[in-house]
Amino acid sequence: RARREVLFFPSPPRCTEALLAQAEAPGAAPRPCPCPLPHGESSLGRLLRHLLSARRSLDLCLFAFSSPQLGRAVRLLHRRGVRVRVLTDAQYMALRGSQIGPLRLAGIPVRHDQESGYMHHKFAVVDGRLLITGSLNWTTQAIQNNRENVLVTDDAEYVTAFLDEFERIWEEYNPA
Amino acid sequence: RARREVLFFPSPPRCTEALLAQAEAPGAAPRPCPCPLPHGESSLGRLLRHLLSARRSLDLCLFAFSSPQLGRAVRLLHRRGVRVRVLTDAQYMALRGSQIGPLRLAGIPVRHDQESGYMHHKFAVVDGRLLITGSLNWTTQAIQNNRENVLVTDDAEYVTAFLDEFERIWEEYNPA
Ligand SMILES: [Zn+2]
Ligand SMILES: [Zn+2]
Repeated sequence: RARREVLFFPSPPRCTEALLAQAEAPGAAPRPCPCPLPHGESSLGRLLRHLLSARRSLDLCLFAFSSPQLGRAVRLLHRRGVRVRVLTDAQYMALRGSQIGPLRLAGIPVRHDQESGYMHHKFAVVDGRLLITGSLNWTTQAIQNNRENVLVTDDAEYVTAFLDEFERIWEEYNPA
Repeated sequence: RARREVLFFPSPPRCTEALLAQAEAPGAAPRPCPCPLPHGESSLGRLLRHLLSARRSLDLCLFAFSSPQLGRAVRLLHRRGVRVRVLTDAQYMALRGSQIGPLRLAGIPVRHDQESGYMHHKFAVVDGRLLITGSLNWTTQAIQNNRENVLVTDDAEYVTAFLDEFERIWEEYNPA
């Protein structure tokens, strides 16, 4: 049976420290977080959990990527040995707060457009089997303030279409 | 069996006159179009066909709407008796070229946010049974120049989730 899920935003501010800390040190005993934020479920938490489920590969095709929590999750996956690739928009990646610089510094391959139009996709494919796509740019502004949607599906027809699109753009943006 | 389709953009400029003229005058004999544009299929053409399939209702929830062809299709459906409702973003609707003014002039009910965040959704529900959603804002710039995706699905779980979101926002933006 196909997995189908929709996440709607804005997502109220929730602490994601426990989620990320546990992913960074799976063996460690959970420690209560002293921060003042509520610690319940949220759309951002669900999105993080789906990303952190990656075991082999993570393909990101994102117009804007500045969320610190999502950036931390992606670097964590890279350190864990997941093959991460990032496609992004040249205009946006230079903005302050972009996570693209830190991802590159961590050794994650990033390619961007040289085009006049925007690379406006906002999708991720986890392990070549789970598609995450919608209106949401990966910024704190969008997560906390905007009306947004994100679909999560393992429907093979959709996953294949987006994987093919990723590979097409990945080759086209090859700087070599 | 579920309908699943993905449209990718940019969509090369193609004449959509025949498609729209035929929808406006279904009985009329098709006339060859003298314009210099190519007349083949395109992602914009597919999107128009899905919209023009509406018989009872069309719910639009769009951050940006300035495409003349899509605006013409929506006004045509309204004249045909389809119940059209539009949710949009207050900041964008005032921009030059927005289709929101012409839609309102035609008598289509439009509601917009009063919020600090963006109403950043880009989805449509046709006849309460077909969901059209993705990264694409309904602007000629995005259609012709950007890398974009649009999913089309009649999967009841997705359709219901987005219809609920539409009704929630429609009530919340009630100016009364
Ligand atoms: Zn905390
Ligand atoms: Zn023509």
